[in-house]
Amino acid sequence: MLRTCTWESAEELARQRQMGIPARAATAPAGRGGAGRVAEAGVKVVIGSREAQRAGQVVSELVTTWPNLPGAIEGADNAGAAAADVVVVATPWDSAITTVRALREPLAGKVVVSMANALHKEGREMLALVPPRGSVAAAVQAALPQSLVSAAFHHLPASEMENLGSGLEADVLVCSDHAEASAATLELVGRIKGLRALDAGSLNQAAAIEAFTAVCITLNIRHKAHSTLRLAGI
Amino acid sequence: MLRTCTWESAEELARQRQMGIPARAATAPAGRGGAGRVAEAGVKVVIGSREAQRAGQVVSELVTTWPNLPGAIEGADNAGAAAADVVVVATPWDSAITTVRALREPLAGKVVVSMANALHKEGREMLALVPPRGSVAAAVQAALPQSLVSAAFHHLPASEMENLGSGLEADVLVCSDHAEASAATLELVGRIKGLRALDAGSLNQAAAIEAFTAVCITLNIRHKAHSTLRLAGI
Repeated sequence: MLRTCTWESAEELARQRQMGIPARAATAPAGRGGAGRVAEAGVKVVIGSREAQRAGQVVSELVTTWPNLPGAIEGADNAGAAAADVVVVATPWDSAITTVRALREPLAGKVVVSMANALHKEGREMLALVPPRGSVAAAVQAALPQSLVSAAFHHLPASEMENLGSGLEADVLVCSDHAEASAATLELVGRIKGLRALDAGSLNQAAAIEAFTAVCITLNIRHKAHSTLRLAGI
Repeated sequence: MLRTCTWESAEELARQRQMGIPARAATAPAGRGGAGRVAEAGVKVVIGSREAQRAGQVVSELVTTWPNLPGAIEGADNAGAAAADVVVVATPWDSAITTVRALREPLAGKVVVSMANALHKEGREMLALVPPRGSVAAAVQAALPQSLVSAAFHHLPASEMENLGSGLEADVLVCSDHAEASAATLELVGRIKGLRALDAGSLNQAAAIEAFTAVCITLNIRHKAHSTLRLAGI
């Protein structure tokens, strides 16, 4: 069975909450929601953190909130989580590279899914920052030359992801330079209730996909909505 | 009544056709379709070109195709088109700045809508190019410091736009640094059948909005579709 791990950095989450960064703008809740959604699809999930104990706390919260998930969720340190078959990097964008660089060896040959967006809140809108390589996913791929990096899950509203009863329906765009990574990621996304996975081409597309998250969040701020992306006609 | 003009460069269109650039990737058909859709909404449209005669040819084609449009369509040179209340720049992206720079004076104080996307086809996908100022719209605003520039119409598939009977339903993202330009553009888009106009914030958002067009076209290539963007939940 496909195993998925997400890195959930509890410290980062606490830091962001202290700084007043709204939960919906943080990667951490999106990762937590993603872990719950994947477990709901019957997939075993390992949540990683720099300290296994902190990952365990997040697992306890998840299991308390959703006691009857078909897939098991367990906590581990990042190295433990990196042992999964498919690894989703769900740290905040500015710690993604530091996190994966330390795990270059265990991640070699594996499918690694980047879901972070480089964003900055300014007034009533979210702005897309341009990472030096164009996208966070490209930087993850450069940091992990032996891994099969894909990008996915960018436009999902964290609040809807965290609420399994939200009736979330959204399209998820998947891109990668590796056919195997695209296929595995499309399969993983397709298993999650309410999500439709669409192949969006090579990892070059990650720059525009990530940046567009800023537009989606700005629309939500302006229209007081929790919108989801849909591509009609496909 | 709101008047709208679009620049339709017949030479550019011919050049692109010669180069084998598919019609759906060219800005010109999108502009022509846009002119028809705006006229369908009862708005008077002036189509501009470097030579008025060429604009007249495009008008003849439009009127032959759609003989009963409520709004009048006429042809003019670019200076004539620039006399409209709202001016839509529908040239290919790499001639937008040259075109508007020559019209800085007549466009002063006016709402100017940028709809171009800097794109490059490579294999089975469309790639977003990053203009020096981040977006074509930002470059148009910089070239027209006295104008009220907005960005809109980026993700609409040209083929669907050109076919008034296509049942097109799509969301159009509008952004600008000028509240007046946002309001006028939102109103114009909202008048067009099948389109919903959404305020996407400041002109900063144009970079991500334009770049995302590459993703939409790549999805269409990969999935053999004519997809349209929808934001569910707004």
